[in-house]
Amino acid sequence: MIKVVLLGAGNVAIHLATALIEARNVELKQRFSRSNKNNGFFDPVIPFTDDLQNLEKADIYIIAINDDAIGGFSNQLSHLKGLVLHTSGSVPIDAIHTNLRKGVLYPVQTFSKERTIDFKKVPLAIETSDPGDFNLLKELAMKLSDHVHQVSSQRRERLHMTAVFANNFSNYMYLMAKEICLEHELSFDILKPLIMETAQKIMDLDPYAAQTGPAKRNDRKVVEKHLSLLEGEQKEIYNIVSRAIRNTYS
Amino acid sequence: MIKVVLLGAGNVAIHLATALIEARNVELKQRFSRSNKNNGFFDPVIPFTDDLQNLEKADIYIIAINDDAIGGFSNQLSHLKGLVLHTSGSVPIDAIHTNLRKGVLYPVQTFSKERTIDFKKVPLAIETSDPGDFNLLKELAMKLSDHVHQVSSQRRERLHMTAVFANNFSNYMYLMAKEICLEHELSFDILKPLIMETAQKIMDLDPYAAQTGPAKRNDRKVVEKHLSLLEGEQKEIYNIVSRAIRNTYS
Repeated sequence: MIKVVLLGAGNVAIHLATALIEARNVELKQRFSRSNKNNGFFDPVIPFTDDLQNLEKADIYIIAINDDAIGGFSNQLSHLKGLVLHTSGSVPIDAIHTNLRKGVLYPVQTFSKERTIDFKKVPLAIETSDPGDFNLLKELAMKLSDHVHQVSSQRRERLHMTAVFANNFSNYMYLMAKEICLEHELSFDILKPLIMETAQKIMDLDPYAAQTGPAKRNDRKVVEKHLSLLEGEQKEIYNIVSRAIRNTYS
Repeated sequence: MIKVVLLGAGNVAIHLATALIEARNVELKQRFSRSNKNNGFFDPVIPFTDDLQNLEKADIYIIAINDDAIGGFSNQLSHLKGLVLHTSGSVPIDAIHTNLRKGVLYPVQTFSKERTIDFKKVPLAIETSDPGDFNLLKELAMKLSDHVHQVSSQRRERLHMTAVFANNFSNYMYLMAKEICLEHELSFDILKPLIMETAQKIMDLDPYAAQTGPAKRNDRKVVEKHLSLLEGEQKEIYNIVSRAIRNTYS
């Protein structure tokens, strides 16, 4: 039985709590949060504390808080004997206080309070400072997910960057499409089946093979026409992404 | 019974043929293609011709060929009495020969030979030159899809442009993510659940509300770090999209 204490009350903590409760041979002994924030999203069965002096003993402590706060927060935990993890894609493992047994459990997924996620399908990138701690972390990770990858801080930084392209930037493409729809009284709903199919397509097709459109076939007439209809940052982005696509396929 | 002749043998023609056969009170009288291309993807029950002189009489002719070829091809059909449609997002209705009864049936979806699509869920943007033809086209469109929208050539051009953002450009974001994965020996599979969830999320959440990431929260440290890891067009795109996201939320 792996005993775990969860620290934080944001979206990652909420989904981790559910996954920890459902995992076999894992005991979520306690959760910590400074405030009552999001209390309603946590199973009330989980013992709760808002006082770091009252933390239970555990094998693993998981800090699921904002990236910027991880270092400072871990300084307040320097007395702990267990393995202390953070869950960030971009924060190096050494941000955790030097006295501690350090690790990372980075779930490569976007979490919302309102949406349920099958945590078993969430890829987890894991790392420990001490090789002797790795098996314990791996054991926990494999109870939570079917997709566990050992990834160093350096590679995790790159992985996080690819997630920015795949998630943040593709969402921004949707956002620009929606803005243009609004300007021309077109319903954004018209684009939803296309957006789903675009994502679905690359589940079994390479995005290189899946690419279509005027830029790929170097249809300059259409590209120029679209550019003439755009302004500002939309135009800049259309221009540079079209050029990059053209260069990729030329 | 609406009698239809389909001209073309590409991805759109393949999926349209299936939808036309399945539609009630629609008879796909014939299909035309200059070559045997993709013959195996069409139901062999559909009468086939490669000779424009042998076209059957029909209520509606659908030209599903490359954008650039539509105008020239329609010149060879100038004797037809039926309504002549093209299926392009970016070609104006007037590209069809002036003697003809003209219309457009633009399916807002990306089609691959290998993937089945529920055509009933494909949004169709329709338009006719002569208002007297509109009801006939609308009747056909509603037999093919549950999502039919009247969209003028001018607005269709904008709609096509939003599809470039939502489909072509988001796929290119996946492609860049994959390239970076390859460079660092990270499996692109790690990103697939994230990509699906990113698309799934905006089925019921506004992309403005769904946006996350370092650029949105103006985390300049992470943005600068990522920029330092990138080069060339990837770096340019990361920079300008991050700036646009920051400006959207500042």
